[in-house]
Amino acid sequence: MMVSTARAMVCLSLCLCVCQVSGSHIPARMNKTIQDLLERYKIPNKERFNGTPVFPMDPLNGTTETKRTFMGGVLETYEKLLGQMLEACDDAARADLSYILKKIQMLKRSSYQEQSKLLQGLHDLGNVQMDDRIIQSKALGELPWLYEEASSLMQRRRRRRQARKLRTRPSA
Amino acid sequence: MMVSTARAMVCLSLCLCVCQVSGSHIPARMNKTIQDLLERYKIPNKERFNGTPVFPMDPLNGTTETKRTFMGGVLETYEKLLGQMLEACDDAARADLSYILKKIQMLKRSSYQEQSKLLQGLHDLGNVQMDDRIIQSKALGELPWLYEEASSLMQRRRRRRQARKLRTRPSA
Repeated sequence: MMVSTARAMVCLSLCLCVCQVSGSHIPARMNKTIQDLLERYKIPNKERFNGTPVFPMDPLNGTTETKRTFMGGVLETYEKLLGQMLEACDDAARADLSYILKKIQMLKRSSYQEQSKLLQGLHDLGNVQMDDRIIQSKALGELPWLYEEASSLMQRRRRRRQARKLRTRPSA
Repeated sequence: MMVSTARAMVCLSLCLCVCQVSGSHIPARMNKTIQDLLERYKIPNKERFNGTPVFPMDPLNGTTETKRTFMGGVLETYEKLLGQMLEACDDAARADLSYILKKIQMLKRSSYQEQSKLLQGLHDLGNVQMDDRIIQSKALGELPWLYEEASSLMQRRRRRRQARKLRTRPSA
């Protein structure tokens, strides 16, 4: 009895330990590298923690899909930022910055492909030549179909929500 | 008997008619106004239909949420485009362009609020001052939490998909 209880305790501790490790997604080396880089930057805490984060948290209050798209944008921004930091860094920081950049790119490529495509599509919208009369005319020609699609995409959601409400309404 | 059959027929035709109208989300006046504006632009069909649409369809092959976010971006682009067209238009086109702009803005405000907020968040990411050392340091400090969140957001999806697969697998 004593032996089986002890065995169960060992199993439980092992389980908790594994769960804790698999619950954290940031590799220890990555965490350490970030801390090393931060020490090199020597920015006073008063400036680092001045209450205005670089990446605002508001979009992370939305739906899971909203969070994922925003996170895709955050990873893209880190990719550019680290690229820029690498251009101006000294040799001591180069390996650390390259390692962090690689980790960001790996996560982006393995899990954020759909978000990356969507972000590219949104970037392209920003390049529409708005002062070109041909573009203006073509955009007007595409509007009926797009307006129709934009309306029906949301009508479907409304209908689904109403159906769900009716299903979950307790019968009298 | 004859009267009730005739009444049923009238009801059915009326139903079909209403369904057809509610199936289309673009108001007839809006459609007509777009056609009037297109006539005013006098762009040769060869240029209007040259195979490269202003708004690419690729993001509309994604998930419903992807489509909604992209459509939010499309509506935003139309809002800017029509604003620019209004600045340079003659008096004859002004009322028509204003009407179309109002329809776009109404759809955006009534149904695309979450998408608009997300797009604003993504635009803000584009304004991060990448050459500022304080910003670089602050962004590094925020990275562990954001990387963790970005990884776990996708791990949750993977786990849900695996669970769904196990549930739907036919038992031996």
